[in-house]
Formats: sequence, C-alpha cells, structure tokens
Amino acid sequence: MNPVFADLPNTVFDVMSVLARDLGAINLGQGFPDDPGPADVREKAAEALRDGYNQYPPMMGLPTLRRAIADHYERHQGLALDPETEVMVTSGATEALAASLLALVSPGDEVVLFEPMYDAYLPIVRQAGGIPRFVTLRPPHFRLDEDALAEAFSERTRVVVLNNPLNPTATMFGDQDLALLARFCQRFDVTAVCDEVWEHVTFDGRPHRPLIGFEGMRERTVKIGSAGKIFSLTGWKVGFVMAAPPLLKVVSKAHQFLTFTTPPNLQEAVAYGLAKDEAYFLDMRARFARSRDRLSAGLTGLGFSVLPSQATYFLTIDIGELGPRLGCADDVAFCQALVREHGVAAIPISAFYARGAVRNLVRLCFAKQDATLDAALERLSGLM
Amino acid sequence: MNPVFADLPNTVFDVMSVLARDLGAINLGQGFPDDPGPADVREKAAEALRDGYNQYPPMMGLPTLRRAIADHYERHQGLALDPETEVMVTSGATEALAASLLALVSPGDEVVLFEPMYDAYLPIVRQAGGIPRFVTLRPPHFRLDEDALAEAFSERTRVVVLNNPLNPTATMFGDQDLALLARFCQRFDVTAVCDEVWEHVTFDGRPHRPLIGFEGMRERTVKIGSAGKIFSLTGWKVGFVMAAPPLLKVVSKAHQFLTFTTPPNLQEAVAYGLAKDEAYFLDMRARFARSRDRLSAGLTGLGFSVLPSQATYFLTIDIGELGPRLGCADDVAFCQALVREHGVAAIPISAFYARGAVRNLVRLCFAKQDATLDAALERLSGLM
Ligand SMILES: CSCCC(=O)C(=O)O
Ligand SMILES: CSCCC(=O)C(=O)O
Repeated sequence: MNPVFADLPNTVFDVMSVLARDLGAINLGQGFPDDPGPADVREKAAEALRDGYNQYPPMMGLPTLRRAIADHYERHQGLALDPETEVMVTSGATEALAASLLALVSPGDEVVLFEPMYDAYLPIVRQAGGIPRFVTLRPPHFRLDEDALAEAFSERTRVVVLNNPLNPTATMFGDQDLALLARFCQRFDVTAVCDEVWEHVTFDGRPHRPLIGFEGMRERTVKIGSAGKIFSLTGWKVGFVMAAPPLLKVVSKAHQFLTFTTPPNLQEAVAYGLAKDEAYFLDMRARFARSRDRLSAGLTGLGFSVLPSQATYFLTIDIGELGPRLGCADDVAFCQALVREHGVAAIPISAFYARGAVRNLVRLCFAKQDATLDAALERLSGLM
Repeated sequence: MNPVFADLPNTVFDVMSVLARDLGAINLGQGFPDDPGPADVREKAAEALRDGYNQYPPMMGLPTLRRAIADHYERHQGLALDPETEVMVTSGATEALAASLLALVSPGDEVVLFEPMYDAYLPIVRQAGGIPRFVTLRPPHFRLDEDALAEAFSERTRVVVLNNPLNPTATMFGDQDLALLARFCQRFDVTAVCDEVWEHVTFDGRPHRPLIGFEGMRERTVKIGSAGKIFSLTGWKVGFVMAAPPLLKVVSKAHQFLTFTTPPNLQEAVAYGLAKDEAYFLDMRARFARSRDRLSAGLTGLGFSVLPSQATYFLTIDIGELGPRLGCADDVAFCQALVREHGVAAIPISAFYARGAVRNLVRLCFAKQDATLDAALERLSGLM
C-alpha cells in the first residue's frame, strides 16, 4: 500500500457530513447549499438524459461547453481563452486539481502551499513525489508576505498552489498579493495552480481577480473553476481547467487516465447555464450574503466572536475561551462536542493545516435556508 | 512537468473518435453502443435531477447504490459483499482503476501487467512509481502460462492487473487461468486489481468468473465494475470498486482526492437499474451477440479473417497481407488509411502493447445499429 494514502484519515468534510446524517445534526460543516439549484439548469440536464447523447463525450469536454466556458470567462474576467486548446472539462474541481498536480509535479520538485489549505492539496502533491514548502498565512487578513515567499521559493520550486478566494478563511487576495506572487512565479519559473472555485461566490461588490490575468502569468497559470459552485449544484462534479496550450496539454494527459471524461448531460446543462446574464450572479451573491449576515448577526448576538467573510459559503468563529470552558482541548474536540451534544456539525480549522495548526477557529457554512440557520443558532445558544 | 504524462500521446480511443467526427467516418473505434440505453434508467436519472438531491453525496457513494451493488453481485456472481465496508462508487471505472493503483502501488513496487492491455494501466502504474513487469499473452487464446507468470512474479511484486473479459481480444480467462493466477498471488502475497467492466457483456452462454471468488482471493482482490457497460450508457461514468475492508479503505483515500464523489442522480438511477432481472441481461447480451454475428459474417463474406469474440463490444480482424497490399506498414497506418480514405474508424491493436507489439490486428466495435454495421461493411468492401 502507498503510505501517502494508507496513513490518511477520511476527509473531514465527509466525516462530518456522515456524523451529521447519523446523529440528525444540522450540517453546517461540508460546504454545500441546501437549496435545490436553478430549476432551468436541472431541467436542461434532465432533457439531455431523456433525449440527448449518453455515450462518451470527447475527452476534453463537449465543444459547446468549452466554448461556453471561454465566453463566460471573457465576459466575467476579461480573459481571452481559446476553447480548442486552452479549456478542458473535468469531473469536478477535485479532479482538475489532481490532474494538474499529477501532471506538473515530478518526484523531488518543490511545491509551495499556503496554510490554511484545502485538504486535497497535500496528499496529491505527496503522491506526485513533490516536496511541500509551506507558507503560513496569518489572521486576520491572510495576506501574502514578501519575506515568507522569499523563504519558500527557490530554484527547486516548480509549482505553487493558490486558493483564491481562500477556503476556509473566506478572504480574497488583493491585487498587491497577486502581483507579488506573480513576480515570484516569474523570478523562479514556477507554474501557479489556481483553485478559484469560489470566484463567483464573493460579497460586498468585491470583484475576484484571477492570477492568470496578471502580467507574465498567462503562460504559467493553470486556472481551475467549478460549475458546482457557480450553480449551487455541488453534486454535479463538473469542473474546468484553463491554461495555455502547452500546460493544458500535459494536464489533459493526466485527466484522460484519471476519469477520461464527464457525463455529457451535465456538460450540456452547464453550457446552457454559463450563458446566464449578470442578474443571475448578482442574485446568487445577494442571497448568500443575506445568509452570511443572518448567521453572523445571530452568532454575534449570542456572544460569539465572528471573523469577517468576503467570499465562499463560510464564516469562522473564534472559540477562544469557550473551548476550555466546555472542556474541549482544541477545535477538533469542540466540533465533536458540537455535533454530538449540541446537534450542529462544523469544521475545525486545524484540518486545513499540516503543521503549526491554529486550534481556536471553527468554520460554519451559512449557505442554508433561514430556518436551518435559525435552528442552528438556537442550538448554539446552549453553549453560551 | 511530469515526464510520465508529458511524453504520452492522447488516448487512441479519443483520437479516433475525434477523427471520425471531423471526417464524418463511421466510428467503430472507441467502445460505445449507439443505442440510447434503457429509457427507464435514463428517466430515473432525469427525475432525480428535477426532484432529487443534487449536492455532494457521501464520498463512498449513496447507501442505496452501495446496497444495490452488493445485491447485484450476490445475485449474479454469488459474492457476499458488505455494502458498508466493501463497496465504493467511483466516477467511472477509469477513476476506480486510478484510485486502486495509486493507493496500492508505492515507488519501487513491481506490478505485473498482461499485454495486450488497456492503455490507462501503464501510465498510472508509472505515475505511482511502480515498475511494470509485462507478460505477453499469445493469440489465439490469450491464456495464462505458468512459466511466464513464474518469470514475472517475484518477492517484489505487489500488484497484478487483470482485465477479464479481455479488451481488445474479446477473450475470457477460464477457471484454470484464474486458479493459476490465484496461486501466484498467494505465493507472492500480491493484490489483484481486476478490471471486470465487461463481465456482463459476454456471449454464447459463457459465464464470467470473478477472480475474487477464487480460493484465497477474497482478501487480496480489488474488483472493478462499470455501470456504463451494464446499461450501455458509457458517458455516465459511474464505476464500482469492491474489495475487503482493509483494501477498500486505502483505495477510498485515493478516491477522495481524485474526484471525491459522483453525481447523485446518476447513482440513484444506477441503483434502480441494478435491480433489473435476468431478462434484461439476457436481452442485452443477445442484442450484442446478434450485432457481433452480423459484423463478423459480413467481414468474413468480404474475405476478412475475423478472430472469435466471446465478450466485450469488439471483434478483431487480422489484416495480414492486406496491410502491405494497401501500402500500410502496420496496423496504425492501416487504421489511418481506413478512417481517412474509407470512412471507417477502428483501433490498431498495437495501441494495447508497451513492447513487442502485434502489428497485424485491428479492433472493430460491433455495438451499433444494423444499418451502421451494414454501411461500414459497404465501405470496407472497397478494401478487398
Ligand atoms: C469535497 S467536500 C468539501 C466541500 C468544500 O469545498 C468545503 O466544505 O470546504
Ligand atoms: C474510455 S474510452 C475507451 C472505451 C473502451 O473501453 C474501449 O474502446 O476500449
């Protein structure tokens, strides 16, 4: 057995969802909305199942979807992507990430990872034989720091993984951060793998800035997007990879032997959905922002210390003295007590660290109906 | 870039399908049926899109599907699988295979591969750092041979990959072959990864025998199945992994970071479909057998030498002197001429070999409407 995988725990998101289901807890752990997603997009996918083509689509994705992706990112982010050579469809952003890292990292290559980080990054880097070089981002702003980058980057660095907007902190990197990172990538001839699945789930009018749009990054960035996040249909597992032709070519070689392709009916529906106008995106953001504000206000009212959330489905609370007061040694113990004794599932932020874990923060998903949030608040009030 | 992937060609199945589409050729290359698949199964999936749950299902798969898989294999192959600990759902058999090999192979481990072999095996073994040990199977029967196994297996062997029924030869391993392989696996403490995606597409009443059912193999076999093949819905990309709990556990750790999960609506429909009674399977086999016979008879009538086909969607022709006569140096050149000049896409068998390739065989997919097969025969008649 491969020790990279043999020694891994189950991903915390699934562990918490399974626990929530088994215990009947309110699930504010794993990030998914509890609304059903746009009816017209689902109907389109249903029609394609009934009347459409259900055999292997092309390995790179349906031509209509690849064109829709290119049009979408031109309209929303001003990117000019050639659908034939710079866009690929994957079975979710997780597969996009695995294909990108497996294709770009060779044994002995150094890979810069920022902590906190999504739990899929490190095992795949390790599987590829990559050597992680961690940069810890510090609260409350989680900005990039020139000295820290200078320490992490070297002639041996081949890849840096950037998650922007950043899960779990719900922060967005600013132009200064991105320009700084772009300079390091160029200086050390590094490819940036950008997990930008939250690019559309942003609040307060703050626009997402893709790293690939920064000077010098067009040829050295692999950008990853997610239809599940765009359409609140996380189970669909339709992702995108966008990169210059030489990069995309090698990523596609890994993709073809990881999943090969993605259900064509879902691809057709996503192509249809991506043509939606700005109103859809404004409405989606407004709804999630309202939910964020509802949960945040409720938590603050109960006396919790709530960190700001600029993007994603998440906000974070600082459990500070509450943990010890409840007899919980850390955020993991706190989340166990929360789900078992108080009926609310949440995610301990230490799950996003490989070392030097923060132990006082807990992530809650607010992408839920008002009634669900209110019920969770009611249960949480028992803690204070 | 990782040289394992950077140096790979596109998979021949996609290359040929893209060519067929671009040139308007009849596509007898990539293996997919051109019928739409069972209407009730597709309708079930459509309903689940409209009225069901479209967020992340559990990482291991929907409980209803895992139970349906266990029930299905008990009924069809007499296997007793615990749905909770011995069954996992993947995004197609390709992902099942990638997860299994990445989880079970560590750098330096030897992996026994039989040639001809499906083109996904070797790159993933290489990516895992495995050292391939090839055993070449010989026409016309492609049986296992004790001496060849003795040469390939050693104390360093960790995994053997078996494809049964075997694509592209359309042969099935017999009890003797399987018992022989089982003995080697036990003698050298080797895990068998069994790609059995064609297990239901078998002809002439010959039953599939899963290696996991052989003595001593229950604890050392990873069995892979495919809903796409069972329901003639190859685009759905729903696969299964079945293995004893300690094996499945580590395979699931790789799966969780390759795709994490698989669209729930397709999972629900597959669960529904797996309950179909024997009549469905008998009818499916009878229809494909009829198509096989039609194409085989037509080819024989034209003077082609056709090898027998016991399973899969494929039959193979020996192009013998025809290649040179048409000025084609090998099977690859022949297939290029075939698709470009004669409007029929096929697969050169040399694509299934890493070394010592057979150069005189070409694979044709017969899982097509009568009219499509007849039109292809008409075009092929121009060659003779
Ligand atoms: C793949 S399950 C995790 C979903 C998610 O993005 C999160 O909860 O952080
Ligand atoms: C993943 S495309 C190949 C499908 C297939 O099994 C074949 O044509 O051999």
